[in-house]
Amino acid sequence: MTKKDFLKDPVKHIDIKSFDSTSIIDSMRDMSFTSRDTAIATDIYTKMIRENDCTIFLTLAGSTSAGGCMQVYTDLIKANMIDVVVATGASIVDMDFFEALGFKHYKGSPDVDDKLLRKFYIDRIYDTYIDEEELQICDHTIKLIADGLAPKAYSSREFIREMGRYLTKHAVKKDSLVQVAFENNVPIFCPAFIDSSAGFGLVKHQWERPGNHLYIDAIKDFLELTKIKMAAPSSGLFIIGGGVPKNFTQDTVICAEIIGKEVPMHKYAIQITVADARDGACSSSTLKEASSWGKVDTVYEQMVYAEATSVLPLIGSYLYHKGDWKKRTAKEWAKMLDA
Amino acid sequence: MTKKDFLKDPVKHIDIKSFDSTSIIDSMRDMSFTSRDTAIATDIYTKMIRENDCTIFLTLAGSTSAGGCMQVYTDLIKANMIDVVVATGASIVDMDFFEALGFKHYKGSPDVDDKLLRKFYIDRIYDTYIDEEELQICDHTIKLIADGLAPKAYSSREFIREMGRYLTKHAVKKDSLVQVAFENNVPIFCPAFIDSSAGFGLVKHQWERPGNHLYIDAIKDFLELTKIKMAAPSSGLFIIGGGVPKNFTQDTVICAEIIGKEVPMHKYAIQITVADARDGACSSSTLKEASSWGKVDTVYEQMVYAEATSVLPLIGSYLYHKGDWKKRTAKEWAKMLDA
Amino acid sequence: MTKKDFLKDPVKHIDIKSFDSTSIIDSMRDMSFTSRDTAIATDIYTKMIRENDCTIFLTLAGSTSAGGCMQVYTDLIKANMIDVVVATGASIVDMDFFEALGFKHYKGSPDVDDKLLRKFYIDRIYDTYIDEEELQICDHTIKLIADGLAPKAYSSREFIREMGRYLTKHAVKKDSLVQVAFENNVPIFCPAFIDSSAGFGLVKHQWERPGNHLYIDAIKDFLELTKIKMAAPSSGLFIIGGGVPKNFTQDTVICAEIIGKEVPMHKYAIQITVADARDGACSSSTLKEASSWGKVDTVYEQMVYAEATSVLPLIGSYLYHKGDWKKRTAKEWAKMLDA
Amino acid sequence: MTKKDFLKDPVKHIDIKSFDSTSIIDSMRDMSFTSRDTAIATDIYTKMIRENDCTIFLTLAGSTSAGGCMQVYTDLIKANMIDVVVATGASIVDMDFFEALGFKHYKGSPDVDDKLLRKFYIDRIYDTYIDEEELQICDHTIKLIADGLAPKAYSSREFIREMGRYLTKHAVKKDSLVQVAFENNVPIFCPAFIDSSAGFGLVKHQWERPGNHLYIDAIKDFLELTKIKMAAPSSGLFIIGGGVPKNFTQDTVICAEIIGKEVPMHKYAIQITVADARDGACSSSTLKEASSWGKVDTVYEQMVYAEATSVLPLIGSYLYHKGDWKKRTAKEWAKMLDA
Repeated sequence: MTKKDFLKDPVKHIDIKSFDSTSIIDSMRDMSFTSRDTAIATDIYTKMIRENDCTIFLTLAGSTSAGGCMQVYTDLIKANMIDVVVATGASIVDMDFFEALGFKHYKGSPDVDDKLLRKFYIDRIYDTYIDEEELQICDHTIKLIADGLAPKAYSSREFIREMGRYLTKHAVKKDSLVQVAFENNVPIFCPAFIDSSAGFGLVKHQWERPGNHLYIDAIKDFLELTKIKMAAPSSGLFIIGGGVPKNFTQDTVICAEIIGKEVPMHKYAIQITVADARDGACSSSTLKEASSWGKVDTVYEQMVYAEATSVLPLIGSYLYHKGDWKKRTAKEWAKMLDA
Repeated sequence: MTKKDFLKDPVKHIDIKSFDSTSIIDSMRDMSFTSRDTAIATDIYTKMIRENDCTIFLTLAGSTSAGGCMQVYTDLIKANMIDVVVATGASIVDMDFFEALGFKHYKGSPDVDDKLLRKFYIDRIYDTYIDEEELQICDHTIKLIADGLAPKAYSSREFIREMGRYLTKHAVKKDSLVQVAFENNVPIFCPAFIDSSAGFGLVKHQWERPGNHLYIDAIKDFLELTKIKMAAPSSGLFIIGGGVPKNFTQDTVICAEIIGKEVPMHKYAIQITVADARDGACSSSTLKEASSWGKVDTVYEQMVYAEATSVLPLIGSYLYHKGDWKKRTAKEWAKMLDA
Repeated sequence: MTKKDFLKDPVKHIDIKSFDSTSIIDSMRDMSFTSRDTAIATDIYTKMIRENDCTIFLTLAGSTSAGGCMQVYTDLIKANMIDVVVATGASIVDMDFFEALGFKHYKGSPDVDDKLLRKFYIDRIYDTYIDEEELQICDHTIKLIADGLAPKAYSSREFIREMGRYLTKHAVKKDSLVQVAFENNVPIFCPAFIDSSAGFGLVKHQWERPGNHLYIDAIKDFLELTKIKMAAPSSGLFIIGGGVPKNFTQDTVICAEIIGKEVPMHKYAIQITVADARDGACSSSTLKEASSWGKVDTVYEQMVYAEATSVLPLIGSYLYHKGDWKKRTAKEWAKMLDA
Repeated sequence: MTKKDFLKDPVKHIDIKSFDSTSIIDSMRDMSFTSRDTAIATDIYTKMIRENDCTIFLTLAGSTSAGGCMQVYTDLIKANMIDVVVATGASIVDMDFFEALGFKHYKGSPDVDDKLLRKFYIDRIYDTYIDEEELQICDHTIKLIADGLAPKAYSSREFIREMGRYLTKHAVKKDSLVQVAFENNVPIFCPAFIDSSAGFGLVKHQWERPGNHLYIDAIKDFLELTKIKMAAPSSGLFIIGGGVPKNFTQDTVICAEIIGKEVPMHKYAIQITVADARDGACSSSTLKEASSWGKVDTVYEQMVYAEATSVLPLIGSYLYHKGDWKKRTAKEWAKMLDA
């Protein structure tokens, strides 16, 4: 076996425009269990879209971008169905920005000898492989971008905006989330930005330039995200996976109150997760539980207990073909934040 | 609130013939995680269909029949893609036979006051309701059928065949699994038949007729099922949920050996489940684990970790529209067993 | 590697008498999540013991007997804390009766090459191994017992009673659940008895003696179990795992009603499981859901979401050392059923 | 119902010194499934302690501190069994620092009306309640500490050190993790520090003092944590829950390489989690998967699939009473970082 034998079948991202799931979701609405939950979640998303004043937050944790859903998120932004992205660093840098640089994820197996993978510098995410040598190019590109910026404090959003700008000139694969969000003035936040390939590049940036380097100030992220919540008349959450992005976005309601402005709870919330509510962890806490914290309203909320790659394409295709997004105006919150 | 308020929105069963999931499954084949597992499982099923000598066993546990997938199984039988059914009693009697008598399952909520449901004699399966008074009519019908039969030992298969015969005359809803299986000579086994609405009717039958009643002999079930395995040149398993039906069907390989005939392991096996392999229970044991027992071969096996209502319609619709079943001959194993 | 290399470290069953978990459970009562649930479940069990009129049903599914908890169940019976056992066939025959014949389970690994195990006739349950050649001796012993019985219909309970009688003469390991239950007149039911090593032996018995063999009549099981429920002034359930044993035992409430005697719901119920409620399957359905069916009361019920080997020893040791069982009278329901 | 009715039974933290789990863990070593995994994990921890050169990282996600395990972590630090803590902000600020200020968590129920809780400003974590008005005092205290510091960039570790210093003067409850870690020179890192009660206080700090405020620089955290990894001859991970803390700590191996120093993989790793490996998320990825990334060695690694409150007390008590820690020298990494 050579390294090439492992890295030969690339993951291809599903195109929600290429098939129409309308009749499937319409059937699922009258079924039970996860199928009905999927349809209800889709219907709540439709409400978010139809309420033009509602700002839609996508929160993203887990590896769905590596696992074939990367284009779904890009298409949702292009179709004006997402206004703000709050994500793990891995989703944005190791997966999306990485592919924008021309690299791929590969189909693998969960039953492989990990020592052999290690020998070949192949990283594994369950059944998916990444070439670590390519990932190091990604780290290095982040460092290059950082080296070119003024040595001050940036929110992760500001830094990711620079990554988007970089891609407009250097992208091998057009149509990445980072670039499309940049072009559509959709801000992307990574509240734990350093916990990613970006972290390696940025540590190296600081290590090489003591006293003359930039910072990533997470407080600024929280303030900027809260400013959007304060400016938005209404809001809804589309939560993939949970984690810090989920909690961070929910918390903007409390944060606004702390700095002196009462805002409504998030009016809509849907979450796709395999997590289990019983251990008190954030990823798995139900949306009803969040309502006790004053974060999320309970009228329009739905948990979908599924691994997201199996249901997200159905939801996305339905929304795309239903076309309610055509009447929706772009929020372009990045403009407000950069002003 | 009245009872009617709870029982107003019936579950409607998804029709895999009415939409075409081909392009979705084709996309999922190049994704990761549950989506790819779903595509691989579909491809293994395709192999089972194309190998004309392969007998296909459907094993059924859980409540997917109540939850909107009842017609999927019927359509698979009609399209000659299932040769034997091994199921929980609930799937066959409380759900399928129940609807054949003209009753329905209803869309409900998991967040309901169960004491209120109890007051109204409404039974709940997660988010789905059943009218218990209607279920008692189902119990009673089973008793009527039993009362009309000779007082001897029956396999569950033989008894269910009588239920099918009953439905050819009395069914309100045509197209039930029990009736369609009867008409297509597809045997249905329930290794724990008494653990269902049938149990109530049959206990009453015995209670009222001491010394003059029938038996359900589970040993006979196992022998009959093993006879099919011995007669089939090759075999494959389509496992929904796990439980006794899964284990019972896998065990026919060992059983054949015990009574003196070496048979090949089940050549193909796919399982859809949400269960967790770590507690050593049968439902959750992986197909690889089954191979250590000599039950299932490991070349063509795939676990799909999903709640079945969300992925089964995609698999079924793909297989239906792909059309490989059109060239497949019916096995009609009931004929051999009844001979 | 030889077969012996795999089968060298036997599983040893934990002895709840040898350590005292009282202070641990007392601390857990004031914690959260699974620890508190464990303490609450223990407290409900204490209530069952203190209410002398309460008949306690143990329902057993999964592989905890193979996994080191076999002696826990035996000790609970000896200490008069269990009056009826309803179990999977595997728990009773493949695990308990098997060890009574002098065989062992062995510590193994979930990350083993199952093809190699197959070669050596070693069966695997997650991380535990069984020698299949020894298991075939177990099958054969069942056949021998059957061959010695009159050719009529038996409940599984009646047959298991004969297995207990056999062990009083032939057991290599005393103190098995089957033997101790026999000696203490605690009935054991296996509603899916044939789905076990017993099934192989009994099929062979029928195969070799056409027209002159016994039956296992599951209807009789249900009737006998319901008779206990009707005779018991009050009842409680200790549910390990779920499955058919759980549902079957819960259903006695309905069954009593069907044959004309109103009985109270099961007053107490505790369940230890890793299963997930969201797929509508029986194993995972919550005890609250069961209350909608009129099976279980909701005042004293507790789900403990844990793999049972990790919490059952703590519960058992606490109950044993607390000593409330010393004042409890034995129910000896087998006497009533055999009368 | 008044607010007091909900907040009357405080969670009490289990004291691993007050009971001895040695014989339980010794028994579990010869069982199967989660019990054996728990014993193996304990044995690996023992190895970490006995290898004096090994630096032990505790990574903490989820709500075990709120759920009764807060004192476990403190006792492990006092007994010199933890050298570095990497945690979610919630564990450190909302739970530990919060209780140090004199507040409590309360025993609640998962089946409560969350709207009623909202009315009373009670926050819920599964079955545990927090008084949100007290939490706001916690937010405010963080702001006070920030207001007293020089307006420059801090790692979360540096800021948490100031919180520890604050508690030496103002703590109501002595013995908090934050204070004990401060006093023992054990550094605490929160890579997503702002995603917590601290975030609210720090946003307010920045909001009120434009141009004259501090930053939390997550890059500095990663660099400091990597410096420990580079200075430690050997290392082991004790992972509770997963999340960003797990990944961040694992990644120090790669980070060291990026800035030019080859370091060994983490030699030991144990993880307690309820998460499911199949969705490719970080929390749930197995330790074997991590080895493909070059982060964790696979010789001494063990996943324990359990909700941590149920097994952590057993592990902690065993290690405490075994006493290997008595011969171990303190690492006091905070001294190196502050030098």
